[in-house]
Amino acid sequence: MTYFHHISPIRFEGADSQTPLAFRHYDAKRVVLGKSMAEHLRLAACYWHSFVWPGADMFGAGTFERPWQQSGDPMAQARAKADAAFDFFVRLGVPFYTFHDTDVAPEGANLAEYSSHVGAMVDVLEAKQAETGMKLLWGTANLFSHPRYAAGAASSPQPEVFAYAAAQVRQAMNATKRLGGANYVLWGGREGYDTLLNTDLRRERTQLGRFFQMVVEHKHRIGFAGTLLIEPKPQEPTKHQYDYDSATVYGFLKDFGLENEVKVNLEANHATLAGHSFQHEVATAISLGIFGSIDANRGDPQNGWDTDQFPNSVEELTLVMYDILKAGGFTTGGFNFDTKVRRQSNTAADLFHGHIGAIDALALALDRAAEMIKHDALAAFKADRYIGWEADFGRRILGGEYTLDTLADEAIRGDLRPNHVSGQQEWLENLVNRYIYR
Amino acid sequence: MTYFHHISPIRFEGADSQTPLAFRHYDAKRVVLGKSMAEHLRLAACYWHSFVWPGADMFGAGTFERPWQQSGDPMAQARAKADAAFDFFVRLGVPFYTFHDTDVAPEGANLAEYSSHVGAMVDVLEAKQAETGMKLLWGTANLFSHPRYAAGAASSPQPEVFAYAAAQVRQAMNATKRLGGANYVLWGGREGYDTLLNTDLRRERTQLGRFFQMVVEHKHRIGFAGTLLIEPKPQEPTKHQYDYDSATVYGFLKDFGLENEVKVNLEANHATLAGHSFQHEVATAISLGIFGSIDANRGDPQNGWDTDQFPNSVEELTLVMYDILKAGGFTTGGFNFDTKVRRQSNTAADLFHGHIGAIDALALALDRAAEMIKHDALAAFKADRYIGWEADFGRRILGGEYTLDTLADEAIRGDLRPNHVSGQQEWLENLVNRYIYR
Amino acid sequence: MTYFHHISPIRFEGADSQTPLAFRHYDAKRVVLGKSMAEHLRLAACYWHSFVWPGADMFGAGTFERPWQQSGDPMAQARAKADAAFDFFVRLGVPFYTFHDTDVAPEGANLAEYSSHVGAMVDVLEAKQAETGMKLLWGTANLFSHPRYAAGAASSPQPEVFAYAAAQVRQAMNATKRLGGANYVLWGGREGYDTLLNTDLRRERTQLGRFFQMVVEHKHRIGFAGTLLIEPKPQEPTKHQYDYDSATVYGFLKDFGLENEVKVNLEANHATLAGHSFQHEVATAISLGIFGSIDANRGDPQNGWDTDQFPNSVEELTLVMYDILKAGGFTTGGFNFDTKVRRQSNTAADLFHGHIGAIDALALALDRAAEMIKHDALAAFKADRYIGWEADFGRRILGGEYTLDTLADEAIRGDLRPNHVSGQQEWLENLVNRYIYR
Amino acid sequence: MTYFHHISPIRFEGADSQTPLAFRHYDAKRVVLGKSMAEHLRLAACYWHSFVWPGADMFGAGTFERPWQQSGDPMAQARAKADAAFDFFVRLGVPFYTFHDTDVAPEGANLAEYSSHVGAMVDVLEAKQAETGMKLLWGTANLFSHPRYAAGAASSPQPEVFAYAAAQVRQAMNATKRLGGANYVLWGGREGYDTLLNTDLRRERTQLGRFFQMVVEHKHRIGFAGTLLIEPKPQEPTKHQYDYDSATVYGFLKDFGLENEVKVNLEANHATLAGHSFQHEVATAISLGIFGSIDANRGDPQNGWDTDQFPNSVEELTLVMYDILKAGGFTTGGFNFDTKVRRQSNTAADLFHGHIGAIDALALALDRAAEMIKHDALAAFKADRYIGWEADFGRRILGGEYTLDTLADEAIRGDLRPNHVSGQQEWLENLVNRYIYR
Repeated sequence: MTYFHHISPIRFEGADSQTPLAFRHYDAKRVVLGKSMAEHLRLAACYWHSFVWPGADMFGAGTFERPWQQSGDPMAQARAKADAAFDFFVRLGVPFYTFHDTDVAPEGANLAEYSSHVGAMVDVLEAKQAETGMKLLWGTANLFSHPRYAAGAASSPQPEVFAYAAAQVRQAMNATKRLGGANYVLWGGREGYDTLLNTDLRRERTQLGRFFQMVVEHKHRIGFAGTLLIEPKPQEPTKHQYDYDSATVYGFLKDFGLENEVKVNLEANHATLAGHSFQHEVATAISLGIFGSIDANRGDPQNGWDTDQFPNSVEELTLVMYDILKAGGFTTGGFNFDTKVRRQSNTAADLFHGHIGAIDALALALDRAAEMIKHDALAAFKADRYIGWEADFGRRILGGEYTLDTLADEAIRGDLRPNHVSGQQEWLENLVNRYIYR
Repeated sequence: MTYFHHISPIRFEGADSQTPLAFRHYDAKRVVLGKSMAEHLRLAACYWHSFVWPGADMFGAGTFERPWQQSGDPMAQARAKADAAFDFFVRLGVPFYTFHDTDVAPEGANLAEYSSHVGAMVDVLEAKQAETGMKLLWGTANLFSHPRYAAGAASSPQPEVFAYAAAQVRQAMNATKRLGGANYVLWGGREGYDTLLNTDLRRERTQLGRFFQMVVEHKHRIGFAGTLLIEPKPQEPTKHQYDYDSATVYGFLKDFGLENEVKVNLEANHATLAGHSFQHEVATAISLGIFGSIDANRGDPQNGWDTDQFPNSVEELTLVMYDILKAGGFTTGGFNFDTKVRRQSNTAADLFHGHIGAIDALALALDRAAEMIKHDALAAFKADRYIGWEADFGRRILGGEYTLDTLADEAIRGDLRPNHVSGQQEWLENLVNRYIYR
Repeated sequence: MTYFHHISPIRFEGADSQTPLAFRHYDAKRVVLGKSMAEHLRLAACYWHSFVWPGADMFGAGTFERPWQQSGDPMAQARAKADAAFDFFVRLGVPFYTFHDTDVAPEGANLAEYSSHVGAMVDVLEAKQAETGMKLLWGTANLFSHPRYAAGAASSPQPEVFAYAAAQVRQAMNATKRLGGANYVLWGGREGYDTLLNTDLRRERTQLGRFFQMVVEHKHRIGFAGTLLIEPKPQEPTKHQYDYDSATVYGFLKDFGLENEVKVNLEANHATLAGHSFQHEVATAISLGIFGSIDANRGDPQNGWDTDQFPNSVEELTLVMYDILKAGGFTTGGFNFDTKVRRQSNTAADLFHGHIGAIDALALALDRAAEMIKHDALAAFKADRYIGWEADFGRRILGGEYTLDTLADEAIRGDLRPNHVSGQQEWLENLVNRYIYR
Repeated sequence: MTYFHHISPIRFEGADSQTPLAFRHYDAKRVVLGKSMAEHLRLAACYWHSFVWPGADMFGAGTFERPWQQSGDPMAQARAKADAAFDFFVRLGVPFYTFHDTDVAPEGANLAEYSSHVGAMVDVLEAKQAETGMKLLWGTANLFSHPRYAAGAASSPQPEVFAYAAAQVRQAMNATKRLGGANYVLWGGREGYDTLLNTDLRRERTQLGRFFQMVVEHKHRIGFAGTLLIEPKPQEPTKHQYDYDSATVYGFLKDFGLENEVKVNLEANHATLAGHSFQHEVATAISLGIFGSIDANRGDPQNGWDTDQFPNSVEELTLVMYDILKAGGFTTGGFNFDTKVRRQSNTAADLFHGHIGAIDALALALDRAAEMIKHDALAAFKADRYIGWEADFGRRILGGEYTLDTLADEAIRGDLRPNHVSGQQEWLENLVNRYIYR
């Protein structure tokens, strides 16, 4: 009898369903713009928040009573955790899952133990995947929880820590490849600083650059076909993290010649902590050609830390979905629920409610965004707004036919007196609401 | 009889001076670390906030009674303003000033009038400079106040607006060259967006890139020897500005091949609006090799807009100064007071108090930072902290001698178990206070 | 031919309407929970942002071309403005409007002129109201734009400024009474401080308290039947405003014995600037018994100033509406659009788009909230959650039957070991979305 | 051999001391404005952050190696912790300490065990106090860490939780009385909400009010002579806490008739999380007559959570100290270091560095503030600024001699045209720096 035995597999029942635990909008096989909802969304549940975190916060102990988190033999617990996790994934009905190395296997006392543990658990996961049909969206290595990483991993002041991290990443990448992972994620959880007083920014950035180059080289060496993803976050637990946001990551990638090798895994709550809207980060990554995948969650607009709540704003998600669809949709990426139930939500059912609501919100957003694209009033508006840049004068400017001098001369000669043309923001906002509230 | 006639030239009188308007710490000729204070700080006062702004805010009318802001013939006013400004600069005793084109000359009805006005006023400024010995730290063009720029200048949806901006920048660059300006600044006051709904990020970024390439080409063509500077700001008045912060600007410069041509003019208040400390932005720009100049001001930690207050925290400025000194000090840059007195501070004396306090704070910071460098405990600490990277193992890692595989193997073979070493943040903070509060 | 002559009166056309300027959801006469939509929402348009503001911001000149804002005789302009405003109100089809004294009449050179101007314009407004059927939701006095109020009005260091403010408020209250206003609003636009260094908090708070007491006494003396409303705002343009938020205002009212005389006019953007959600401020005011009216707008989550945008989040508004309906709905209050179009939205149509979208969003929110109340799952959940407080033990605790000692003794004697019960936040959030996305 | 055996007792050695662990500015016996530094500052170290917290954060395990935090018999650990704590307090040389009940004693399985544990440890503490001369600044009860308090303590939906909390508070108050505590603190760590969807604000506030009334009654019953203190905090771990800030607490106290019974314990980092400056909260509490004590720490201006860093800004602390001194100084309150070393600062010495730097910063601030008071230019400025309110007209207004009507009439009759008078903020800021940087 499993932890989730009392929860029936979640089914699509339509908007009017009165079943507490059912999908109202996510119909995996329903075709939207030529692909099924499942293919569009590529949903993933995570190990980290849902199976490792005990419901503790900085001011209080864990409130959950997950059997696999009780004391006992670490490997036995890891197996029990895998049982529970896959039981959950299957009942929920998402096609993908994600994990950190130390989510699935005990850390051990040293690298030898670590390797042995991870190796054994990869066997377990492989069997679970075969048994259930679950697929791996991405794997990653936890380079931030152990005290050795208190001052960073690749950016640590100690090369031995860098080397330890390299061993973990090698193992995690190899595991991801073996499990058929679609991507491999690098999150620099403590790659940043607590104070500039003890930090050499240039040196640490160089270390990071070298680390990522080694990772890229390894990917090609082992023939990993997935995408490498950096996950930007501006701060927390560090005062400042090097992978602040998409634009910062882009400059870093350019500097180390990695802009064609690495993309970004964007998290909604990280975007807002960085002072951006979620849509901004998605649109920016797309415009820079580095959009990869999404950690779908939300923050609290009044709280200044990573609350990792389940996304539930269809209004916000529709615009994000619109941008993703316009960019061609995910390739290897997907929507991973890097989300945790609130500490007060301590039951097994709460874990389902969180995921179900988020999945339905994404399904609604997909549906609305698809409608927006069918009659693409926004695209038409933009085409009209920038029309001058498609005409002769605009093309010649961007084509390099003018110098500052010749263009200035032409502006004076032509006595240009351009008038401002309304940006019609309010009308466009209303238009979007028309699609959302049909 | 001038507006400031009742204010005697400001002199250095030492810390115990009881004179209300005197320098207590800024002794222009005092030599610190081999250079005079004046040479280190390269202080500049600005036209914009001190002579153009009438003391208005979004909720109220101007409170100042500057005679040159009253109604009348625009060119006569411009001349009166120049008289007042240079009178102020000289009485204050700073060596440099800064301006936007439309600060010094009336905008006019079209580019022909604009050119004529700016041309006439450059003659005036040139004569003023000759007469007073004042020098120009930088010039710039105002591409954000006129309604035509409501949707941006180089990033405008209308190529005619781009062309108008080109004409202004050409004129402002030429004026800056003729006046011997040490730098030319580009601030993208509205180069950003109000809503993503009507904005094509990729297109606008491409426009901006082309604009800056034209500016660089023009600089070389006219033989302008100064430095080109971009001034990052994250937002306001736009929702989001493309030049968000130093790291964002760096990625942009790399993309358009401009990273060796353009540096940054950093403003303290812009740094904090972007979610960074002032020191962070300075340290980041230095680490990326794009540090140029400073707009010395401060924001209010509780207010979310650009308050542009006079800097007065010696604690904050000392760390910034330490980083600048360690990086070799300014070359063409300097400390420009992009600052405004509070709307309630409506007298001529208030304008002096603001500048004097800021200058004394910078002088104190210079003095403290120089002491820090004489016995450079911070540098010694860092050298010790990263010592492993200077030893064999670290050098070989960064030198490219390891792949992820060989490094991981070595970590396992050596059974590496690195322990965390204290970062000693509290001790370092205390050490800094020892220098500041000798 | 009026400024808005090309805009046809806005009509309800239903969700599928293709008319650009039409209501899709606001059907004034449609009955919801026993009252018409118009009676529920009590919509008001404002003079201030829509007819007085020229589209200027701190970095640029006005972009609008409203004829009544051009230079000319102030009283003639005021009349033209009234013509345009009422033409707009009527075409839009809202039942109420709101104004500051100096929105509708020129300030004049002194109080005598001011009184004469306001008096004349009240005649105009009275005639307009009679002619159009428009009603006044509230009037107020502008005590923050003129330089005399730079340091506050009632909290000014100068009693003469207090007296000047008293004269304006008397006139504005009397005008509001004569025009049948449903409320009178007091917004302390500069009742706060720029720096604590020159501010005596206790003294200024005492002045404010006395001022409000005088206002309350005047209300009763003249027999004004409407509600007095304080509008909380935390900051901007001041560093800190005394009426920070609802909870702060409540403490102030208690201190001066005004808690039964004055309520609050809550603005969404002020709530978020104060670090609260909009719903928080509404729920707090209701729980304290001081809820009065709403300035319906929104801020930008990434911008730290009062953007005063048109509300368009049905998700946010539905929860606010739910709370208001549960509290019995508005009595004298209503939804006033204290909103401005973006500076780039410079056409007459933009002004309509902004209002129409906001009205439709409120209508949708009303519709969804009403559904929530019909099957009030939230109320049922809360009733169940707090059920222990309705049972004997809870009632006796709150009824004062226990001291700390006797209660502690009973807890020990009974060996109480209460377990945490899930708060089911995720389920509740999903439930709300079920109502919003039927 | 104790954990701190290698640290010599910290002595005052003067500003030029080269000893790493020594006071440079805090000379306990030095008399300033008639009292010793020790009497002014009433310094306290805390159990909570320094002896209970293991150096963990939300993303990583503890980095510290405190022997008393290892596994073992809870009461034996509690005794070892007390040994270490008092050894630390004595070596540091502060006169006071502070604790939560569960900091000093194991929680136990139920209230009986809890009572027994706390009782036993109070014996230990009493002996320690007698032995060392240490005094208790305040005690408190931890009503937020145990899962039972996940939804609050006094504001819990379950009356049994309220009762459990009552038992803890009774025990902690009695312990505080027995140990001669100068104050008793109430911090509502989870007295707030995570979502409004499941929360009845009015009900929970009523519960809180009743709880505090019971506490006040108990204080008088047992004859506790100390002060009751509420510690405001706006949020974290909850989304929103009822004791948001001083002004909110004041309204709450007024409502329940407690404003003469309870004061506030202000924390710098809580002030900034609430959107206020530290000085604002102190000045506000003083102006409302509820200032009690200080949790001296600081936040990080770029991080949105409670970082609880050691205070080190003399600039900030001088203004706070000035306000406290002007208000007569502490009565029962003091400066408690509610501070934690950074997670990277894992040595015993780091714990001393943190405290020493903070104490020296407070000593410097005391010294500078005392100088400010000796020649009180700020007070003189304020006296002059508000002089009109001390003259006849101002006194009559505040004295209630005018109604709005008669005052408005007088303003018109006198044709009042008050001009704005400069607030001289910049001059005042410079003046303060003159005292800080003598």
